[in-house]
Amino acid sequence: MFLESIKTPGISHLSYIFGNAGEACVIDPQLDIKTYLDIASTHQCKITTVVETHRNEDFISGALALHKRTNAEVLHGKNADSTIQYADTVSDGDKRTIGAWEVSFIHTPGHTKDSICVVIRDKQTAQSPCGVFTGDTLFVNDVGRTDFYPNEKEAMAGALFDSLQRLLSLGDDVIVYPAHGAGSVCGGGMADREFTTLGVERKNNPMLQLESRDAFIDKKVNESHYIAPYFEAMEEANVSGVDAPWLPENLQPIIGNDYESWLDAETRPGHLIDIRSHSAFRDQHVKGSINLPGDLLSAYGGWLLNYDTPIAFVAQSFEEANDAAKQLWRMGFHNIAGFFSNIPMPITEEDKCMSHLSYITADVVKKRLEDEKNWVLLDVRKNEEVSATPLPGAIHTYLGYLKEKSESLNPDISYTCMCGSGKRATVAASYLRQLGIKHVDVFNGSMQAWKDRYY
Amino acid sequence: MFLESIKTPGISHLSYIFGNAGEACVIDPQLDIKTYLDIASTHQCKITTVVETHRNEDFISGALALHKRTNAEVLHGKNADSTIQYADTVSDGDKRTIGAWEVSFIHTPGHTKDSICVVIRDKQTAQSPCGVFTGDTLFVNDVGRTDFYPNEKEAMAGALFDSLQRLLSLGDDVIVYPAHGAGSVCGGGMADREFTTLGVERKNNPMLQLESRDAFIDKKVNESHYIAPYFEAMEEANVSGVDAPWLPENLQPIIGNDYESWLDAETRPGHLIDIRSHSAFRDQHVKGSINLPGDLLSAYGGWLLNYDTPIAFVAQSFEEANDAAKQLWRMGFHNIAGFFSNIPMPITEEDKCMSHLSYITADVVKKRLEDEKNWVLLDVRKNEEVSATPLPGAIHTYLGYLKEKSESLNPDISYTCMCGSGKRATVAASYLRQLGIKHVDVFNGSMQAWKDRYY
Repeated sequence: MFLESIKTPGISHLSYIFGNAGEACVIDPQLDIKTYLDIASTHQCKITTVVETHRNEDFISGALALHKRTNAEVLHGKNADSTIQYADTVSDGDKRTIGAWEVSFIHTPGHTKDSICVVIRDKQTAQSPCGVFTGDTLFVNDVGRTDFYPNEKEAMAGALFDSLQRLLSLGDDVIVYPAHGAGSVCGGGMADREFTTLGVERKNNPMLQLESRDAFIDKKVNESHYIAPYFEAMEEANVSGVDAPWLPENLQPIIGNDYESWLDAETRPGHLIDIRSHSAFRDQHVKGSINLPGDLLSAYGGWLLNYDTPIAFVAQSFEEANDAAKQLWRMGFHNIAGFFSNIPMPITEEDKCMSHLSYITADVVKKRLEDEKNWVLLDVRKNEEVSATPLPGAIHTYLGYLKEKSESLNPDISYTCMCGSGKRATVAASYLRQLGIKHVDVFNGSMQAWKDRYY
Repeated sequence: MFLESIKTPGISHLSYIFGNAGEACVIDPQLDIKTYLDIASTHQCKITTVVETHRNEDFISGALALHKRTNAEVLHGKNADSTIQYADTVSDGDKRTIGAWEVSFIHTPGHTKDSICVVIRDKQTAQSPCGVFTGDTLFVNDVGRTDFYPNEKEAMAGALFDSLQRLLSLGDDVIVYPAHGAGSVCGGGMADREFTTLGVERKNNPMLQLESRDAFIDKKVNESHYIAPYFEAMEEANVSGVDAPWLPENLQPIIGNDYESWLDAETRPGHLIDIRSHSAFRDQHVKGSINLPGDLLSAYGGWLLNYDTPIAFVAQSFEEANDAAKQLWRMGFHNIAGFFSNIPMPITEEDKCMSHLSYITADVVKKRLEDEKNWVLLDVRKNEEVSATPLPGAIHTYLGYLKEKSESLNPDISYTCMCGSGKRATVAASYLRQLGIKHVDVFNGSMQAWKDRYY
């Protein structure tokens, strides 16, 4: 028996594959299905079963792509909002086998109406379950969000409470395999630890310590989560299914005339995403490119980019570009034009102005707040961060909302962008720049620097 | 927080590294310490603590080598048979911290007198333990062997029973991280699954279902385990400590005059180990080489090879030779001469006789048993296999005992070697051949073939 977890960075997603005696089962696959096929082959197993714990909203399921290549049965819970066209429905209590393992399903609505948990038992050595894949129902130190049905928030929160009670009744000794770790948009309180049991959660998870069902519902309906615009596209894709596995040829270098046209902001065929560090970007970048380094690409790409627009990357290396392309691919951005690493030196002073991003210190921010006209300190943090530590005088627009609120920005004034540390501020500044706003800079260190200096 | 298990094939050993906030802890390191250093670096952690769950007898601890390179504190339980010269002693209830994790120790004698279990708790999110490293005290579906003190078997078995009760009192919800998986010499009943909890074991582990302490002791003292001769060397090494980490330069190709002298059985400077498959070996091999493919190298190398004798490998590839050299290195064989892949074609008929190993079928074995003189069917299986399914007429000598019983073999008669499937029989036949016994062949399929044909 083998069991491996596959972590997808950016969205902090955990998919799983386990197998025994020639058969393997995949839980919540991503589109880079080669990972699962390779692991199954290594263990001389055939993937016979693919399970979706719910209709995912933050990535495109790889279930259809796996089914097309392995003929594996795809299983999905009942009560989905639309018929999942590539899956069979499993109901509460249904069972399957994988080698000497029994796989059974519990219907656990709450995060979504079709959420299921997948219970595994070693038939050879155990009378009781050994593990449970909890999808977005239960995480380490948190539970799933319940705000996806705006008119049924209380009912969904109540359903999640009931589902969690059923889950806990499996026994303290059952190992929990959640679908997300810390850093996911699917819950804010997850611990930085990917292993737990139902007992550890029962005793320690703050959401399982509340005194009553009503207290749980009250807490859940008062949570505030962002609903990214790409969630809707993901939900649609995960009804019809997408047979577009990640392939090595999906990322090519951009050369020759294509390179020239991507360099020039006037002729550029699409979004140019610079995934180098915020420092490297500020020092020198291609005019009109958007800085989305590391995990910020997954976190904000779905907010700021258009699905129909081709995308090219400026990256330090092929490996970096490949990781970035995969991240967007999983979220349904399949119009990847390629990448390049060579950024031309600016020649004129005007060139330099548009390929360099200045930053300012807390002292300058303070002074500007006191006497600067035609200037805005733009705070792009999340609501809860701003509530916890506001910076008086700043105007708040969440980074994810910049695209839909771009009309409210004034190209004739100047902006200083700020966030918690300066990284998201650099993303915001690059986005404002490519909208055509000329006078933009970044509050270096942002809230951290402000606290160090003026709190 | 990260936690990774590192599986060492052959001896089915599991070592672990976990870390948080810049600090990391290694449990029961092997000599290939680069593995741990690399993982720690990836997570930007420094290895500050190394724990030995007991004085290991089946491999050389990498604790001293890690200490020399990281200055990490090395911890070992009390009541060791000799003072562990490179470690500090921890007592029951002692604590350490690794980042935001509390690490505490329970003294759990039974497998050895110095056995400890290592309990970890996430101080940020949990009031109770999340996991326990159980060393050779508790495995998945089995418990540690208690036969290392021949005069104290009952006392040690009783101690293990008491230790297991204490361990279980940590709670059903604690994840178990054992030091061995299925296939280890440290326990015979382990399940083919590397994840479990104290609750799953309490409910299902056959050794935890016995009705009383006396029943447990009775069961343990009647177990039969082999004690390999290399265990003693390992135990000595793990008192003084061995600072000999595995390094890439430990394995070099053998070329030129060295190659010629290793080829010739007369001038050969040491053991020539052929790690190719038993089929490839039987078809054609270097005269006088010993076939020890795959896991059989770890399982029987310590029985059949001398520590003082140089060792060279015949391998399909560098990778194969490297894995084999590492396997022996971990067991303290540090006199590795190198490897080669090219086997010369036999030219004369006599050459062919000594570089080819014939096999025979069940029908021929049956006929020989009825009327062959000066011939022995040599069964090299383990005691329990022979008791379960004897083959009447065969003479039993366990493969591990062939070296010490070699004087009882008669070079003037002919031998057919047999085992469960023919693999260990090929090892045995190659060993007899290099002792100078000329007339040796292998019962192809061995017990499996016999059952198919005559049961």
